Amino acid sequence: MNRSTLLDLLAAVERGDVTPQAASERLANMPYEDIGHARIDHHRALRNGLPEVIYAAGKTPEQTAEIFARMAAAGSDVLATRVDLETQKAVKDAAPGAVFHETARAMTLKQTTQDGPKGHIAVLCAGTSDLPVAEEAAVTAEIFGAQVTRLYDVGVAGLHRLLSVRESLTDADVVIVCAGMEGALPSVVGGLVGVPVIAVPTSVGYGASFSGATALLGMLNSCSPNVTVVNIDNGFGAAYTATLIARAASGAR
Amino acid sequence: MNRSTLLDLLAAVERGDVTPQAASERLANMPYEDIGHARIDHHRALRNGLPEVIYAAGKTPEQTAEIFARMAAAGSDVLATRVDLETQKAVKDAAPGAVFHETARAMTLKQTTQDGPKGHIAVLCAGTSDLPVAEEAAVTAEIFGAQVTRLYDVGVAGLHRLLSVRESLTDADVVIVCAGMEGALPSVVGGLVGVPVIAVPTSVGYGASFSGATALLGMLNSCSPNVTVVNIDNGFGAAYTATLIARAASGAR
Amino acid sequence: MNRSTLLDLLAAVERGDVTPQAASERLANMPYEDIGHARIDHHRALRNGLPEVIYAAGKTPEQTAEIFARMAAAGSDVLATRVDLETQKAVKDAAPGAVFHETARAMTLKQTTQDGPKGHIAVLCAGTSDLPVAEEAAVTAEIFGAQVTRLYDVGVAGLHRLLSVRESLTDADVVIVCAGMEGALPSVVGGLVGVPVIAVPTSVGYGASFSGATALLGMLNSCSPNVTVVNIDNGFGAAYTATLIARAASGAR
Amino acid sequence: MNRSTLLDLLAAVERGDVTPQAASERLANMPYEDIGHARIDHHRALRNGLPEVIYAAGKTPEQTAEIFARMAAAGSDVLATRVDLETQKAVKDAAPGAVFHETARAMTLKQTTQDGPKGHIAVLCAGTSDLPVAEEAAVTAEIFGAQVTRLYDVGVAGLHRLLSVRESLTDADVVIVCAGMEGALPSVVGGLVGVPVIAVPTSVGYGASFSGATALLGMLNSCSPNVTVVNIDNGFGAAYTATLIARAASGAR
Amino acid sequence: MNRSTLLDLLAAVERGDVTPQAASERLANMPYEDIGHARIDHHRALRNGLPEVIYAAGKTPEQTAEIFARMAAAGSDVLATRVDLETQKAVKDAAPGAVFHETARAMTLKQTTQDGPKGHIAVLCAGTSDLPVAEEAAVTAEIFGAQVTRLYDVGVAGLHRLLSVRESLTDADVVIVCAGMEGALPSVVGGLVGVPVIAVPTSVGYGASFSGATALLGMLNSCSPNVTVVNIDNGFGAAYTATLIARAASGAR
Amino acid sequence: MNRSTLLDLLAAVERGDVTPQAASERLANMPYEDIGHARIDHHRALRNGLPEVIYAAGKTPEQTAEIFARMAAAGSDVLATRVDLETQKAVKDAAPGAVFHETARAMTLKQTTQDGPKGHIAVLCAGTSDLPVAEEAAVTAEIFGAQVTRLYDVGVAGLHRLLSVRESLTDADVVIVCAGMEGALPSVVGGLVGVPVIAVPTSVGYGASFSGATALLGMLNSCSPNVTVVNIDNGFGAAYTATLIARAASGAR
Amino acid sequence: MNRSTLLDLLAAVERGDVTPQAASERLANMPYEDIGHARIDHHRALRNGLPEVIYAAGKTPEQTAEIFARMAAAGSDVLATRVDLETQKAVKDAAPGAVFHETARAMTLKQTTQDGPKGHIAVLCAGTSDLPVAEEAAVTAEIFGAQVTRLYDVGVAGLHRLLSVRESLTDADVVIVCAGMEGALPSVVGGLVGVPVIAVPTSVGYGASFSGATALLGMLNSCSPNVTVVNIDNGFGAAYTATLIARAASGAR
Amino acid sequence: MNRSTLLDLLAAVERGDVTPQAASERLANMPYEDIGHARIDHHRALRNGLPEVIYAAGKTPEQTAEIFARMAAAGSDVLATRVDLETQKAVKDAAPGAVFHETARAMTLKQTTQDGPKGHIAVLCAGTSDLPVAEEAAVTAEIFGAQVTRLYDVGVAGLHRLLSVRESLTDADVVIVCAGMEGALPSVVGGLVGVPVIAVPTSVGYGASFSGATALLGMLNSCSPNVTVVNIDNGFGAAYTATLIARAASGAR
Repeated sequence: MNRSTLLDLLAAVERGDVTPQAASERLANMPYEDIGHARIDHHRALRNGLPEVIYAAGKTPEQTAEIFARMAAAGSDVLATRVDLETQKAVKDAAPGAVFHETARAMTLKQTTQDGPKGHIAVLCAGTSDLPVAEEAAVTAEIFGAQVTRLYDVGVAGLHRLLSVRESLTDADVVIVCAGMEGALPSVVGGLVGVPVIAVPTSVGYGASFSGATALLGMLNSCSPNVTVVNIDNGFGAAYTATLIARAASGAR
Repeated sequence: MNRSTLLDLLAAVERGDVTPQAASERLANMPYEDIGHARIDHHRALRNGLPEVIYAAGKTPEQTAEIFARMAAAGSDVLATRVDLETQKAVKDAAPGAVFHETARAMTLKQTTQDGPKGHIAVLCAGTSDLPVAEEAAVTAEIFGAQVTRLYDVGVAGLHRLLSVRESLTDADVVIVCAGMEGALPSVVGGLVGVPVIAVPTSVGYGASFSGATALLGMLNSCSPNVTVVNIDNGFGAAYTATLIARAASGAR
Repeated sequence: MNRSTLLDLLAAVERGDVTPQAASERLANMPYEDIGHARIDHHRALRNGLPEVIYAAGKTPEQTAEIFARMAAAGSDVLATRVDLETQKAVKDAAPGAVFHETARAMTLKQTTQDGPKGHIAVLCAGTSDLPVAEEAAVTAEIFGAQVTRLYDVGVAGLHRLLSVRESLTDADVVIVCAGMEGALPSVVGGLVGVPVIAVPTSVGYGASFSGATALLGMLNSCSPNVTVVNIDNGFGAAYTATLIARAASGAR
Repeated sequence: MNRSTLLDLLAAVERGDVTPQAASERLANMPYEDIGHARIDHHRALRNGLPEVIYAAGKTPEQTAEIFARMAAAGSDVLATRVDLETQKAVKDAAPGAVFHETARAMTLKQTTQDGPKGHIAVLCAGTSDLPVAEEAAVTAEIFGAQVTRLYDVGVAGLHRLLSVRESLTDADVVIVCAGMEGALPSVVGGLVGVPVIAVPTSVGYGASFSGATALLGMLNSCSPNVTVVNIDNGFGAAYTATLIARAASGAR
Repeated sequence: MNRSTLLDLLAAVERGDVTPQAASERLANMPYEDIGHARIDHHRALRNGLPEVIYAAGKTPEQTAEIFARMAAAGSDVLATRVDLETQKAVKDAAPGAVFHETARAMTLKQTTQDGPKGHIAVLCAGTSDLPVAEEAAVTAEIFGAQVTRLYDVGVAGLHRLLSVRESLTDADVVIVCAGMEGALPSVVGGLVGVPVIAVPTSVGYGASFSGATALLGMLNSCSPNVTVVNIDNGFGAAYTATLIARAASGAR
Repeated sequence: MNRSTLLDLLAAVERGDVTPQAASERLANMPYEDIGHARIDHHRALRNGLPEVIYAAGKTPEQTAEIFARMAAAGSDVLATRVDLETQKAVKDAAPGAVFHETARAMTLKQTTQDGPKGHIAVLCAGTSDLPVAEEAAVTAEIFGAQVTRLYDVGVAGLHRLLSVRESLTDADVVIVCAGMEGALPSVVGGLVGVPVIAVPTSVGYGASFSGATALLGMLNSCSPNVTVVNIDNGFGAAYTATLIARAASGAR
Repeated sequence: MNRSTLLDLLAAVERGDVTPQAASERLANMPYEDIGHARIDHHRALRNGLPEVIYAAGKTPEQTAEIFARMAAAGSDVLATRVDLETQKAVKDAAPGAVFHETARAMTLKQTTQDGPKGHIAVLCAGTSDLPVAEEAAVTAEIFGAQVTRLYDVGVAGLHRLLSVRESLTDADVVIVCAGMEGALPSVVGGLVGVPVIAVPTSVGYGASFSGATALLGMLNSCSPNVTVVNIDNGFGAAYTATLIARAASGAR
Repeated sequence: MNRSTLLDLLAAVERGDVTPQAASERLANMPYEDIGHARIDHHRALRNGLPEVIYAAGKTPEQTAEIFARMAAAGSDVLATRVDLETQKAVKDAAPGAVFHETARAMTLKQTTQDGPKGHIAVLCAGTSDLPVAEEAAVTAEIFGAQVTRLYDVGVAGLHRLLSVRESLTDADVVIVCAGMEGALPSVVGGLVGVPVIAVPTSVGYGASFSGATALLGMLNSCSPNVTVVNIDNGFGAAYTATLIARAASGAR
């Protein structure tokens, strides 16, 4: 159901062709498919610009596989995040075309086509241990149609590494920065660019890193005003918002 | 100093007209004005797209007034946030053209002109008590040249109030949502729109709101993936990033 | 022992048929059965309206099985929560009639009968991952004699899913809402109904969800005044109180 | 607007007497009165059973007084909580009939009548210092039409004080228990009664009471399953839900 | 080395029989046996009244066994706490006479004799899950020579269970109370007795019990002034101090 | 009412001279005096060994003064803690014989006599800023009849200060140690003595002392097993328990 | 008393000229001056290299003034930190030669002389609001005899400001870095130098800066391994340790 | 690349032999070796005095082994920390000369030589369980060329153990103190010496030790001003900074 079929329905109510009760029922039931343990939102892209995504961490392999297959059957691009090895097998069985991205712990199925990338996103991370989060962001942005530049292991303790890739930042419409420990990288990057920076704290560290809480707090207190923050290890969320920003900046919304 | 004068300088080094030592010194010292207690960054707009802003909370009235006057003298638009009444007087004395926004606790001096607004930002807040933060965001976005739509007191406990302003959200390039207590509004708004939502937790509440920490945590865990978050009460930061997004979306970057 | 036998005993003291020392001993010792590692309270329903329930998480399978069997032998309905697979086997051996509810991680033995359900409880949850908690609540309410309506996967990020089941809420005497992450659902539901809402934060989420603490804090700060809160993942406690409310509302107390 | 006028409006759409656009506008705008800084929800009692209440803590005296006067003009009972002395004066000027309850820090204006109390609520507190919270609960329950029994200074360190008022608890439909420090009272009370107990942690205490957080946590972990919890010092919220429960239990919903 | 040999040494210095350098060396080196990974304090009972105890949790089985055997060889009573199964075997091999207390996770070797118990300690716990901590306390007190009365599963939600054992409390010189969840039991017990109560929070509970932190905080805020507190699950420490108190109260110090 | 009058009453019930209803009422009402805002427990010393104490912090000056006067009239020794200057005046007016201890912020009225002190308590503090807490402990112990030795400013950073007063510790039946900041003093003292050490964390410090929480946590983790802990700044509670211990140790219980 | 007089005393004991009892007393009492509320450690410089310093925050003006005067009378250099205006006056009266450093909130009295500075310390701060802490560090280092280079307002969001002062860092033996908010500056500085960096978190910031806790946590997790950390706002402690390092590095220990 | 080759390059730009573009590229790329998942900083010793170190905890065995081998090939001394058994094997295969230090969980490869140790570091720990952290510190300091004195199991509860090793502290240029639980040892040691003390909180303890957070907080609040702190269990970082201090103190920088 899209905006025009919605207007058709309301016009039918006005004409008396459809009773208010019937219209109400159709409106209530159509936007999602109820499969018992979940209500799949096939029309999310209509309302929100990007399709629904499967967060596999809280689901059984069977639940994830079933939802993946239903969405694949509906013809849209499909993305599942936080996919472990057992879930990966179940999805492969249910949707053989799905691709597993090991470092990113994600599965994708690309079924639509587009004319070139919509916007440009730079993904940075501070250290090798931040790779899973950075890759979740990169894979997410790519399945949503953005161009991604990866710039890894550029933490602030060796500032020359960051400064040496500074040029690569200038073309990005938006920058995603993943860092654990003290989480200082987004502040420094924020001061180097003139576009939004989305900071992703990672759970990398030990002791008083408190599983990423320290990096999170640091990023929220960034002295660079172009920094906004998402949840710890939430590479997906950062890429989702970055895609919306990059798409709009490239005139492709 | 802008990018072309920078290239001129480097070319001069190549020609031998300027020694590396001299070039180094100029590059190091030019970008800011050292007034003892602060180093004013007059060229920030060149690097970062938007001018430096004065955060008055940590400064004496005299310090704020002096920095404000120096920036005014440089001809750029000036914004000071977290301005109390005593500081407001000191700034007025130093820069008579400055305007005080009482609810927003901000002062502005508009000295540049532009052809119409660059992008469109909707600013929402959940309750009356969130107004100071929402207004800080709105005033910031306006001095930076964006069009702002204010939608206040639309908290989720009376959902009909939010749904009744839903149409006003559709034109925005980005939405800023300010809320205290449980901080649920950004998740609901995030599900209604297809653009980035910047969530601003406010320190409104009591007891287990822990001065905004609860709202902050809630927003970081939003189930709407288009939500990013800034620090508690940081209306300014939200508006700064929103301006960058809206400006790019409107093709005005 | 119930209220009338208690009065009999006190009257016997008045008549001199029972010495104060003897009466004291009987009053002290009768209300529970001491089996060494536990004191089983067979008369709890007399004092508190509902029978004692076995929380299996902190007990060995043998301890749980023994308590279950003793309560079964006493003829009352029996409920054990947080039952793992090993404990489930031990209970089955000790009380063959017991039923295992896998998703709810609960075991029940229904031995009493009643004339139709006492009151009506709606159980909602925000996402698929909240099912174990929601089912613990539903199974508890059912063993205690209430009618339960399950409404699952209706989180606030896709508001139309919640609004589509709104009618199902109108008949409930009380609503239980289970949600993790930001825990926003109870506030929204609270604004839609005129009955008490019992919010159950779940440990669903990651990073700054802090194993349910964020959802808990959000629910405690709900802007809907008809929301009260129980411990993280405490579906049992929510259902226990909801049963008391629904029973009284239906005139069945 | 009530349910029947809503059905009239929808029927008018069906007949073509009202266009969908016009109906949409009326539905969107009618439920509240927009006075700039707030949207007053005059029809809340229709949807939620109890009228809207003014939380004065986050508002200027003028804002509170204006909202109070508007609601008074609408003919409903009015309650404002967290009223300081300055606000009290402003409200008195705007609504001379308003009554100030000093210990409860609340103002009430009773304009409707009812046939006897609807349900019975017992309000307990552990110590003298908990009185403001307990009184906020009692005053709230009374303006909403419930009968209230006050039982104060019955903390668990002197158990005989609680046991001596045990009889007074037996008639209550629901019990509100306010306690600071270790917050143990609700667990003990919960074991003595067969009705719901709403626990209100208070900010009474020092040091490791952390302004009520310790009492809050204790209550959430109560071993009595009939205990639910509200925010620290939230006497109002406890009484609001208790009123709904007591009203239903008395058959008066 | 005891007090008198110490005085002898100092007198020898005064007489010139021992040089200050030599005396210093002897005083420095005698009080402990250095076995590389540990310095065993064989003379602790001289200084502190009770012998050193082995906390096995942070040691390898071999380290624990070696220290246990050395202390056994010195002829004193030996106690090791937090002993897992692997460590238990290693100790048995090294000190065949050692006894393993499974629930308490402790090992003891009794080598000294005394004339009857020194003082009387009551050990209470709120629920079955608190048994390991309560037994650690009981076993510790017994190896140190006190008489112990165990009163288990007497939590406050069923107050009659506690009141029924009230008589058993009257003879104790000191009471140890172990409780998890909300940790309310020590406050209630504290109000019933006239002797010191040592509260031991346990890590029993889930969700907002935060592994015992909630019980700990509750106990620290007890409204009963005769309650002091030890670390979470620290049954040993409670019994150590209780033994000192009971011993002194019985005139046996 | 004491134990014998209680037995008289129960015998009267047995004889039929008193009805159970009448006896119940007398038992319920006698143990305290209900003055509206408080229930004064005049018989606490009978049950708990020491009289009730007034915690003035949460009470109005009038409330404290009234309770103080009532207890004075009953003839017992009276102690009020956390007395500010305004309350001090109100108490002086109501009970002219009361003595104000300025540093301790306490008021005492000694009305009973005893034959020499009952037990010996040493009170230590780490620095000058801990004096108010240490004095609250000392004044409390003295009004309860113990002998007190004050040893102040003996923090661990200058160990020689502590070692120089070591002799003074040897006669104490129990030691109270007050310390803020890192709270290390109780561990060191605990290793020097063979009696119980009651640790009182103080709110002295700044930054990461978190108003005494750091000292509290440190003391709970003391490696000296004879250390138990009370709430931050709770000099009163430490002295209350210390008095019970010292009294028993001196054979005076 | 210094090391040689100590040896003399011990030799006297050996010779029998001094009894052990007498020696013990002299050793115990000499190292400090007991003035009732404090034990002044006049010989601290002998043991620890630097003299005792007065922390005025927890003391009355009179206490601080008395201690200051006593130390001044002893001829050593005197430093008092956290001096408010009232205390400043009291000290001036007691020690007219004392100098007040307003921004640093410190008072100094220089009475000794030295041949040129001992070592070189660079003190950096991120923003204008960090000045009080940075100045406390600078004043402390100077009274202890080090050369100090101040480099203020060089936060990481405008990296060019820091890079422009990079040369000034190269001569320092140790660097003190004060920063609030996200506390990222020490990590970046640590990567630029080859000497120890002492990080001082400041309480500058708002919301999720939690009064400096966020900066503290960030610094503890620094990815630069030459960073150690002191308490929030503890400029004094940083300078104390820095002085020891710089003095040793300059060969002046 | 070192400082002189850098000057050569800049001179070449001045002469026109190298274009600015080419120089920029060389400067950007030379300081590290990009191997995909990491950028190895072979020239770190030039800038920071000590070579880069491999933190293995966040890396796969293959990643650690590859980085180790690359650094070994470059001829410098190599240190890897937090090496588990699987990683140890992979490194052994890649760099057969590497030595595994089991207690320290570290691997070293010594390839350079020096004339005797540079400075002297004492490493203390409070208990046997702190050994892994203390050994990580000791091994790190030794590979960096310092002389190390190990003083283990000298916790404050048995003060005589610490005092007996006091002499061994006097020669150290800097002291590292590792302690868990209450973390009191650094304060006591800080008062005994006149050199910097670097405190390392360890995660040793249980319950309210909160995995080392309590020890960390205690150390940050140390009343000894010569104490600075590193992250929990960060023996490496303590030794890194200690090496810089000791090296400078010995005149070997």
